[in-house]
Amino acid sequence: MKAIITLDIGGTNIRCALFHIERNEPLFIDKISTVAKEKSPIERIIEIIGKNWPKDCEVAGIAAAAPGSVDVKQNKVILAPNIAGWKNIKLGEILQKQFSVKVLINNDARLATIGEWKRGAGRGHDDLLYFTISTGLGGGVITGGKILQGTVGVATEVGHIVLQDDGPICGCGKRGHLEAFSSGTGIQNFVREKIKEGFPTNLKIKNPTTKEIAKAAYAGDQLSRMAFQRAGYYLGIGVANYLHIFNPSCVIFGGGVSQSADLFLEPFRKSLEQHVLNPNYLQNLKITLAELGDNAGLIGAFEYMKQNLY
Amino acid sequence: MKAIITLDIGGTNIRCALFHIERNEPLFIDKISTVAKEKSPIERIIEIIGKNWPKDCEVAGIAAAAPGSVDVKQNKVILAPNIAGWKNIKLGEILQKQFSVKVLINNDARLATIGEWKRGAGRGHDDLLYFTISTGLGGGVITGGKILQGTVGVATEVGHIVLQDDGPICGCGKRGHLEAFSSGTGIQNFVREKIKEGFPTNLKIKNPTTKEIAKAAYAGDQLSRMAFQRAGYYLGIGVANYLHIFNPSCVIFGGGVSQSADLFLEPFRKSLEQHVLNPNYLQNLKITLAELGDNAGLIGAFEYMKQNLY
Repeated sequence: MKAIITLDIGGTNIRCALFHIERNEPLFIDKISTVAKEKSPIERIIEIIGKNWPKDCEVAGIAAAAPGSVDVKQNKVILAPNIAGWKNIKLGEILQKQFSVKVLINNDARLATIGEWKRGAGRGHDDLLYFTISTGLGGGVITGGKILQGTVGVATEVGHIVLQDDGPICGCGKRGHLEAFSSGTGIQNFVREKIKEGFPTNLKIKNPTTKEIAKAAYAGDQLSRMAFQRAGYYLGIGVANYLHIFNPSCVIFGGGVSQSADLFLEPFRKSLEQHVLNPNYLQNLKITLAELGDNAGLIGAFEYMKQNLY
Repeated sequence: MKAIITLDIGGTNIRCALFHIERNEPLFIDKISTVAKEKSPIERIIEIIGKNWPKDCEVAGIAAAAPGSVDVKQNKVILAPNIAGWKNIKLGEILQKQFSVKVLINNDARLATIGEWKRGAGRGHDDLLYFTISTGLGGGVITGGKILQGTVGVATEVGHIVLQDDGPICGCGKRGHLEAFSSGTGIQNFVREKIKEGFPTNLKIKNPTTKEIAKAAYAGDQLSRMAFQRAGYYLGIGVANYLHIFNPSCVIFGGGVSQSADLFLEPFRKSLEQHVLNPNYLQNLKITLAELGDNAGLIGAFEYMKQNLY
C-alpha cells in the first residue's frame, strides 16, 4: 500500500495529513505552528513531514497547499503575504531534494476547490465555483471537469475583480474589488467607517471584528445587519459576473464568514437575480455551503496528487 | 477525401464555407442574405448548404456559428436577438434531419476564438482570451488547451460583467457592464450624451456612428478622442479582471472597433497596468489584434468539428 502526505500551510499553523492511496479518509492529521524559535517555516514543514513519515509503507508523493500566489509549473511560491519572507520560495524543489518523492505545490483555495468538488458539496458538478470568504475572499473554478490554473498558475484570484472603480480600498491596495466589499475585512471596514461617522450602533467596541459584528447582527444591531446585507449585495454582483463567465451548475461558499451565511444569503440571492443576464443562468444552479471545513485543502491536495500520479 | 461544411449565421448574412478535412484553407466561401421574401432564416440556411453540397466527396459534418446564446449540449439556439423569432431554435436537430450528417452548433464568438487559437493570432497559446469589439462586446476563452463553454454552453459572455454598479445602461438592459463602456454602442452613447449636454465637437451629425466618431477622432476632434480613450480605460479594467481570473498568455482583440485600436490601445494599456494586481500577470503576456478577420468563425467551426470527429 502506498501513502500520500498532504500539507496545508497557513500563516499560523502547518497541518499535515497522511493518506493511504486507496482510502479516502486520512489516517491522521497533525498540526504545528508555522513560526517557532530559531526555525524557519520551511524547517517546520520538513519537521512535520519527517515526524509523520510512515514506517510501514512507501510514500508516493507530497502535495502542499500554500497561501498566496503559486507558480504551479515550477512548484514555487511566488508570494505568500501571510508568511514573513516568503517570496519566490522553491518549495517543491526543496521538499523533493529532502524527501526524494514527487512533490506538488498549489494554492490553498484551489486545492480546497478540488476537495469540495471531488469529496464535498460539489460532487458530480464538472462546472463549479468555490468561494472562501474569510479575512480575504479567494476561491477556485472547475470548468469542464478540470481545475482552472492559468498559464503560470495565478488564475482564479476571484476576489480581485473591480465591481466599482471608485469603491473602497482592497487588501491588495486596488479599489472596489469584490473582496473589498464582501470579505470579513470589507465588512469590518464598512462598520468601522460608519462608527467613525457617528452612525448609531449597539457595538460598544471601537474596532469590532467580523465575529463581533455577526454577533451584534444576530442580536438585532442595525448597522451590523446592514454591513452583512451590503456584503451580500456585492457578492450577488460578483457571482452574477462569474455566472456569465463560467455558466456553472454549482456555487459553493466556504470560509469563516460563510458560517454567518444567514446574515447575507437573502440579499445575495436578491442581488444575484437582479444582476443576472437572464434566468437561464439560475436554472438548475445549486448554491450551497462547503462541506469539508478546515480539511478541504488537505483532502483536495490528496485528490490533486492522485490525479497527477495516474 | 471527406468534407466539412461550416456556417457563420448573422443577422444580415449567412456565410457558408466548404473545407476538405485535410486542408486548412476553405475550397470556397459563399454568402446569402439571412432574410429573404417568403423564406425563413432556417430555409435560407438549408438553401445555402444544399447549393454548396459537394458532389465528389462525402460530408463528415456541418458546424454552424450562431449569434447569441447556444445550448451546446442540445445543439439549440436559446436566443439570437439579431434574428427575428429565433428563440429555442433546435437548429442542430433540423439540419441533422435534413442532411443526415453530424451537426454542431455553437456561439459565433466562441468559434471565432477557436479559429484565432488554432490558426490565427493565438497559435501556441493554451490560455488565451479573445474579445470581439463591435456593436456589442463578446468573446471566448481557451483555458488549459480547452474552449470554455460552461454547463449548458452560455459561458464567456465576457462583455456582461459589472464594472460600475451605477454605470451606463448596457444593450442587455443591465447597468455598468464592460460592453456598456467599451463597445461601439458604448462609444456612440457616450458621444451622443455629451453632444446633448452641449460638449463642443466637430461632429456635425446628431447621432454619429462609431465609424464617424473614429474618423473625427483621427481628424483631432477632442470629444471623439475622449470617447475612445474612455472605452480603452474601461477595457483595461475589464481585461485586468480577466487576467486575475484566467492568467492567460495571450489577449486578442477582434471586431470592427478594433480596427481603430490605435485610438484606444494606449489608454487601455495604461489602465491595465494601473488595475492589474501585480506585474506577474503582464510578464510574457502577448496583447495583439485578431488575424482571421471575418473568416474566424468559419475557420473556428471547421476546427471545432474536426476536434469532435476524432
